[in-house]
Amino acid sequence: MAGTPSISKSWQARLQASGDAATAALVASLDVDVALWKYDIVGSIAHAQMLGERGILLKEEFAAIKAGLFAVADDLQAGRLAMPVELEDIHMVIEKALIERTGDAGKKLHTGRSRNDQVATDLRLWARDATDDLSDLIRALQGAFVALAAENAKLVVPAYTHLQRAQPILAAHALLAYVEMLQRDRDRLADARGRINVCPLGSGAVAGTSLPLARERTAELLGFADITRNSIDATSDRDFLAELLFTCSLLAVHLSRWAEDWILYSTTEFGMLELADAYCTSSSMMPQKKNADTLELIRAKSARAIADLVGMLTLLKGLPLAYNRDLQDDKRFAFATVDAMKQALAVAAGLVASTTFRSERIAADIDKGFLDATSLAEYLVSKNVPFPVH
Amino acid sequence: MAGTPSISKSWQARLQASGDAATAALVASLDVDVALWKYDIVGSIAHAQMLGERGILLKEEFAAIKAGLFAVADDLQAGRLAMPVELEDIHMVIEKALIERTGDAGKKLHTGRSRNDQVATDLRLWARDATDDLSDLIRALQGAFVALAAENAKLVVPAYTHLQRAQPILAAHALLAYVEMLQRDRDRLADARGRINVCPLGSGAVAGTSLPLARERTAELLGFADITRNSIDATSDRDFLAELLFTCSLLAVHLSRWAEDWILYSTTEFGMLELADAYCTSSSMMPQKKNADTLELIRAKSARAIADLVGMLTLLKGLPLAYNRDLQDDKRFAFATVDAMKQALAVAAGLVASTTFRSERIAADIDKGFLDATSLAEYLVSKNVPFPVH
Amino acid sequence: MAGTPSISKSWQARLQASGDAATAALVASLDVDVALWKYDIVGSIAHAQMLGERGILLKEEFAAIKAGLFAVADDLQAGRLAMPVELEDIHMVIEKALIERTGDAGKKLHTGRSRNDQVATDLRLWARDATDDLSDLIRALQGAFVALAAENAKLVVPAYTHLQRAQPILAAHALLAYVEMLQRDRDRLADARGRINVCPLGSGAVAGTSLPLARERTAELLGFADITRNSIDATSDRDFLAELLFTCSLLAVHLSRWAEDWILYSTTEFGMLELADAYCTSSSMMPQKKNADTLELIRAKSARAIADLVGMLTLLKGLPLAYNRDLQDDKRFAFATVDAMKQALAVAAGLVASTTFRSERIAADIDKGFLDATSLAEYLVSKNVPFPVH
Amino acid sequence: MAGTPSISKSWQARLQASGDAATAALVASLDVDVALWKYDIVGSIAHAQMLGERGILLKEEFAAIKAGLFAVADDLQAGRLAMPVELEDIHMVIEKALIERTGDAGKKLHTGRSRNDQVATDLRLWARDATDDLSDLIRALQGAFVALAAENAKLVVPAYTHLQRAQPILAAHALLAYVEMLQRDRDRLADARGRINVCPLGSGAVAGTSLPLARERTAELLGFADITRNSIDATSDRDFLAELLFTCSLLAVHLSRWAEDWILYSTTEFGMLELADAYCTSSSMMPQKKNADTLELIRAKSARAIADLVGMLTLLKGLPLAYNRDLQDDKRFAFATVDAMKQALAVAAGLVASTTFRSERIAADIDKGFLDATSLAEYLVSKNVPFPVH
Repeated sequence: MAGTPSISKSWQARLQASGDAATAALVASLDVDVALWKYDIVGSIAHAQMLGERGILLKEEFAAIKAGLFAVADDLQAGRLAMPVELEDIHMVIEKALIERTGDAGKKLHTGRSRNDQVATDLRLWARDATDDLSDLIRALQGAFVALAAENAKLVVPAYTHLQRAQPILAAHALLAYVEMLQRDRDRLADARGRINVCPLGSGAVAGTSLPLARERTAELLGFADITRNSIDATSDRDFLAELLFTCSLLAVHLSRWAEDWILYSTTEFGMLELADAYCTSSSMMPQKKNADTLELIRAKSARAIADLVGMLTLLKGLPLAYNRDLQDDKRFAFATVDAMKQALAVAAGLVASTTFRSERIAADIDKGFLDATSLAEYLVSKNVPFPVH
Repeated sequence: MAGTPSISKSWQARLQASGDAATAALVASLDVDVALWKYDIVGSIAHAQMLGERGILLKEEFAAIKAGLFAVADDLQAGRLAMPVELEDIHMVIEKALIERTGDAGKKLHTGRSRNDQVATDLRLWARDATDDLSDLIRALQGAFVALAAENAKLVVPAYTHLQRAQPILAAHALLAYVEMLQRDRDRLADARGRINVCPLGSGAVAGTSLPLARERTAELLGFADITRNSIDATSDRDFLAELLFTCSLLAVHLSRWAEDWILYSTTEFGMLELADAYCTSSSMMPQKKNADTLELIRAKSARAIADLVGMLTLLKGLPLAYNRDLQDDKRFAFATVDAMKQALAVAAGLVASTTFRSERIAADIDKGFLDATSLAEYLVSKNVPFPVH
Repeated sequence: MAGTPSISKSWQARLQASGDAATAALVASLDVDVALWKYDIVGSIAHAQMLGERGILLKEEFAAIKAGLFAVADDLQAGRLAMPVELEDIHMVIEKALIERTGDAGKKLHTGRSRNDQVATDLRLWARDATDDLSDLIRALQGAFVALAAENAKLVVPAYTHLQRAQPILAAHALLAYVEMLQRDRDRLADARGRINVCPLGSGAVAGTSLPLARERTAELLGFADITRNSIDATSDRDFLAELLFTCSLLAVHLSRWAEDWILYSTTEFGMLELADAYCTSSSMMPQKKNADTLELIRAKSARAIADLVGMLTLLKGLPLAYNRDLQDDKRFAFATVDAMKQALAVAAGLVASTTFRSERIAADIDKGFLDATSLAEYLVSKNVPFPVH
Repeated sequence: MAGTPSISKSWQARLQASGDAATAALVASLDVDVALWKYDIVGSIAHAQMLGERGILLKEEFAAIKAGLFAVADDLQAGRLAMPVELEDIHMVIEKALIERTGDAGKKLHTGRSRNDQVATDLRLWARDATDDLSDLIRALQGAFVALAAENAKLVVPAYTHLQRAQPILAAHALLAYVEMLQRDRDRLADARGRINVCPLGSGAVAGTSLPLARERTAELLGFADITRNSIDATSDRDFLAELLFTCSLLAVHLSRWAEDWILYSTTEFGMLELADAYCTSSSMMPQKKNADTLELIRAKSARAIADLVGMLTLLKGLPLAYNRDLQDDKRFAFATVDAMKQALAVAAGLVASTTFRSERIAADIDKGFLDATSLAEYLVSKNVPFPVH
């Protein structure tokens, strides 16, 4: 058994008998998990380095593995590596390429590691980056709102409740409401990051390993703040993806609320905002129209995020301990939403930065609807007139 | 304006100014809607033919358009057509290629048609095929269950409630329970098909057209059973996709229930089923194991389907009349689930066909748990002993 | 065993030992399934009549049971029956009350029936009524829209796409778009009703019964069109509730789209609709406002329906055959949404009937935005000028 | 206006004209928000005290209000307060009762407060308690798992992956996996609590108030750690409820995974666990069975929680700023899930505490399936034999 590369024992071999293309497609996740390749290589190098430091690998074995993985990374970066569906996932693609380059050394990379803790580690590295990227993009969007508020420091607009004009407020007051929402999203991302940033390597397939690994060392090499404590939990835990998806869902809801507002404010009827042409489209059938398509597409991402959150939670519902293959589909939910949110945030920041208020029309309309009734009522209260208000 | 191809007036042109890659990606759906290309070409040919029959297009214009669309189809089939993201969607790709081949004739294809009714038509043609494909695949799976029941006509197995052994039953009785569930899925697909198979062409962007189209004729050419009655509704109606996704969700739930059963029956502890190797995998770390990975992946598709159903409904929630760009994302939900269900059904049929019952062990275990208590109780009842049962 | 009422063998007895209030609350569904009482009594009478006709019950036993059930019904109608949580569900409440009134005869009611097929029958009877009630309420709402369209037969309003003014249309055209959506809801309800209206009685707990029941007769007495064919499926099938919830979800989405439109049209800015005071509220803090609260609450019901649909599907996901206690929670999802939809529909019909268009303002605003550009473009087309349109 | 109690200007009055029972039911939330009464009274006392300290209320007015609210609380506690649906919500019930007891003083309670910031405050006080209660209940359940692990310190059981026996592990290892999951739930609750515990009082209906409130003082009196910063956001922010529901959803998923495991382990086939009778039920039709009903009902709560999370997010999707009446339904989602989770946790702790392992059968079965292949493989690796493992 020892000399046989694991890939020849895998699914792939069994499938040759059945020749079942549908099965091959069902079990493969390569179309999605290719996005993990950098994390897989980084994680493998750290694991091999620790094995080398512990004497489980020889120095020259580690050197060969490291060089081999760098070469594989170059090939992946350049798009030179074949990715037949039979290899199922990016981990198998990389392992096969490594063994082709390094022989027996490459075969030893999986010493003390299982696919289960390997995949969990890759996912956590990916998710950690995702929280950082999202947090930066949110910060940029917050900046755009703050800048727009500063540019319109004295502009008075109606505040709405029930979509009815309620009271006159500063435009900045409304714009900063979005900044508050987004700040909570960043805070939630930071909290989620803390639970993501824990290293499951060493958990094996389910019950750990009897080899004398140095788990803290691998974690340190990968920048993890801690190691997981229970191998059964660690190999099947996808809470961190669900939490990331929830955080994205609320973020998406915030963006959808803002998009809804600005779609309304851009109508002929409200007439409060002028969006830059680059974020709108028109129809040659109706050339007078200027449609806020990007805002509508951003609003739509709330459906994406909520859907993927539901998918992830439903996937986990009722799964027995520990790893079950159902978990393979976790990435389809997590990657789709994170990609969509990154896209939406990047567009949103540009859109906010290029939007102008139609100050003259706003000023002309501001008195419609007796907006200062509240102020009058409060004045009466200050004179100690009983005045219960709802 | 007349001589200007529409694509030069589009988003694409605006984007050149902004050079915003994120926006280009957000507004594009080409990665997904490329799957519609056949439907788009068929729909366009039927529309052009009707225009020709009504004298709105000249005979030679129709001939040029038809020939041009066939040439474009050949190129698409062969993968020869460039698909830059700037063209946004497959409709633009095809339109541009057609105009390059036919000039002014191609420009006239959109006479009396808007992107809104065109896309709605393509989606309905796609969804009609989806229901037919799914129905056929379900029928094949039903056949596999019936065949397995016939092969094990006399096998007695435990029936379970609450996962506790309840009464001895024929294995066929349990297998045919799945056939019943699947039959309801086929019935629902048939009902859904009736609501899908209605032609929205002629609805324009929202309010129809003043041109003398022959809507029934186009519908007839495309095999639609009827035409839609209200253009405002027709251009923004995606009920048929939601209904298809719901039908897939219940189908997926049925498959997940079956998968759960068979995963259990394949355990060492239950020991009732032997799955074919082609549908299982093992681990080199634990070579004695034979994991029912395909069943787990099939079970996981219920999360996919439910997620996409939620996505579609959430997308539609609260959208004002009529078309809003949010609807562009409808395909992401619909296509992912239909593809997943096709895959799951194809694998399921093969898996059922290759599974065997472990009759000897089943027989050896059948007396565990006093399974015939009910029969005894009912015997007492037949003797007129009062015996309330729950 | 024969003389012992089943209720003394139940959970209740076990709980006396544990005295665990939380457990009692968890296992009880009486707060919800009390709504089934009429269906439970009707179902029991039909079952007893069949048993009597088949000679499984003596004539006088059937008479006693029937009279007893009528007496229990009177008590339930009058609110005279105690409903301690220890009895868990309405079926136990009714059974206990019947046995108190009829003794041994009452104990025989459950001959050839299990709680599993009894509950499935009650649910189907309830769901059948729900489809009928909903269909009637939808029809009334359709009538209100048609009447409003007739009252405003010549009113021209803007059609919107992307919430931008697109083309002038008749108000009736827009109002009838909702009628189309609602008609599809009614069609779906009719299809769902066909799958609901099938009788599971005789399926026992899971594997039927050895008693010579006349299943078609019971079905006939209860107005069912058919009987279920597989007892394992029939006792655990909740597809019909999921389908009802989906139908309600799309209905709720339609109502939310309409509510969104009319909330917008009622703003100061759009100024197109005047809602009756009875459907609005104002704030004493801002007395000038007139908020469309009922429309907002109707819009909110889409969240209710989608949530309950997700709940039902998630409940079923991965459940093994056959009945599992998880199914007890099915009613919490189904009843909440059906009640909410009935409420929303009833309010909607009254609201539509009492709404007026603000014709003068609409007319004054109709020219804003060059709404007739399309007509001009189409005129050019009719002159054979190439004019591709999107 | 000053002397008129606000309730006479409300919906209630309008409804008298319409007599529309459906509308009354739609707009009312009293059936649900009655659970907020303690928080409403506490919040009002703090608000009144601050008003008194600032001189906005006279000392005797504050004294009258405080005494009146205590009296109302006594009546509510004793169930003496009538709650007609016309009063719509618990806030109106309490306000009316207060004014009846205190006249003009009571009418002044709402000085500087709107229903919008009042309700947001009540919800946050409720949610803060909910996180504390849930965290305590989780801790108790963790304790039960730890105690069971300690009782079975040397018991060896199979670890499963893909529901196939993988390796022998200590039972404690598996039990502590659940403790890890639950600890993450507690951590998430703690993070959520931080975002809940912020006081929105002073935000008014949307734009704050011109009265010289001391917002930090009210917050301090109510134990809030901070005040909200933007009134438009604060009056329509329900993120904290969505976050609480997500936290409950993951908790529910953890409980469902555990319940699934233990349902399996309690089967005749697995035979590893003996549940206490108090947590099981049997069927008189099949008296030999012992069904794990409570575990099934606990598993079912994951559907409840996920559904309510979806409901909350869907409710918020696309809502414009600021308060919209849709938000009234937030409580239906939040309360149902928190109640269900409390119930499930309480039952779970008792169930775990009363469960025993069937050690003899487990020991007899432990060798089935060659569980120590991994250990052998790892031994080979320690001899430096290349051995890639998955």
